[in-house]
Amino acid sequence: MPHIDLPPLPGIAALLAGHPHTAAPLNSLAETLLRGPSPLSPAERETIAAYVSRANNCTFCAETHGAVARHLGAEEPDARLTALLAIAEKVRVDGRSVTSGDVAAARDAGATDQAIHDTVLIAAAFSMFNRYVDGLATLTPHNPEQYDHHARALAENGYLHPPG
Amino acid sequence: MPHIDLPPLPGIAALLAGHPHTAAPLNSLAETLLRGPSPLSPAERETIAAYVSRANNCTFCAETHGAVARHLGAEEPDARLTALLAIAEKVRVDGRSVTSGDVAAARDAGATDQAIHDTVLIAAAFSMFNRYVDGLATLTPHNPEQYDHHARALAENGYLHPPG
Repeated sequence: MPHIDLPPLPGIAALLAGHPHTAAPLNSLAETLLRGPSPLSPAERETIAAYVSRANNCTFCAETHGAVARHLGAEEPDARLTALLAIAEKVRVDGRSVTSGDVAAARDAGATDQAIHDTVLIAAAFSMFNRYVDGLATLTPHNPEQYDHHARALAENGYLHPPG
Repeated sequence: MPHIDLPPLPGIAALLAGHPHTAAPLNSLAETLLRGPSPLSPAERETIAAYVSRANNCTFCAETHGAVARHLGAEEPDARLTALLAIAEKVRVDGRSVTSGDVAAARDAGATDQAIHDTVLIAAAFSMFNRYVDGLATLTPHNPEQYDHHARALAENGYLHPPG
């Protein structure tokens, strides 16, 4: 049961519906990070979001963004994305743990400064979304079809008109 | 030295100036969380931001928001804010660690559902901002006067027109 009174919706959908003041900048941030201009494809960015959420044990976010990545045609990570996921993992644990060696390895694999920037900010943002979703004990569906339905809408429409 | 090419500004100012696409929703989120409608005063919200940032060892964020809280007249935390800071600390470490007992203690001390919501989201958001600032190794000034100058502007003008 959620820690506060919320609409009967799963995960962040309950928080966005119940708290529209803060939903506006949160949706705008998600749309910008995951769909805005970036050298990383939307599928790559959703993969980073799912990876961080899985490592943080945020089931709702991990299942949702994993399903969105699949809908967007995510493939096995290549060397560049693998190096960026290693940076995302460092950021997830502690931003200060990212080394110049981690960044050099990503550059060697073809990542630009903008790709490194976007990876760090996506990993940081899901460090927020995961804590928001789990810190208030929102509902976590256990039916994979629910995630798939929601994820298809996010893959098609993005985050400014969330399906709720 | 920062991990990527950035304007020569301290902390998040360099990231906001160098990456205006993502700066817009980040500034909007900071303004909404720290200055928008809430049962928590701006001084209380800045205190939560500084507390989380200090515990995350993000010197730039801790010094900045600590100084903003002082400019806004922050006082010693009362029982309600103390209970909310305990929730913020749990969220900082792992959102899943917040218990119904933590929430009940905050309610007993006078916190409303909205105050609990805002505390969790501020703690989550600074889990993001701290990682963004430190994950890219932005510059950390060591002169307290620099923080104080910046903080006065943030206390007076908020986050939509950051002083840079």
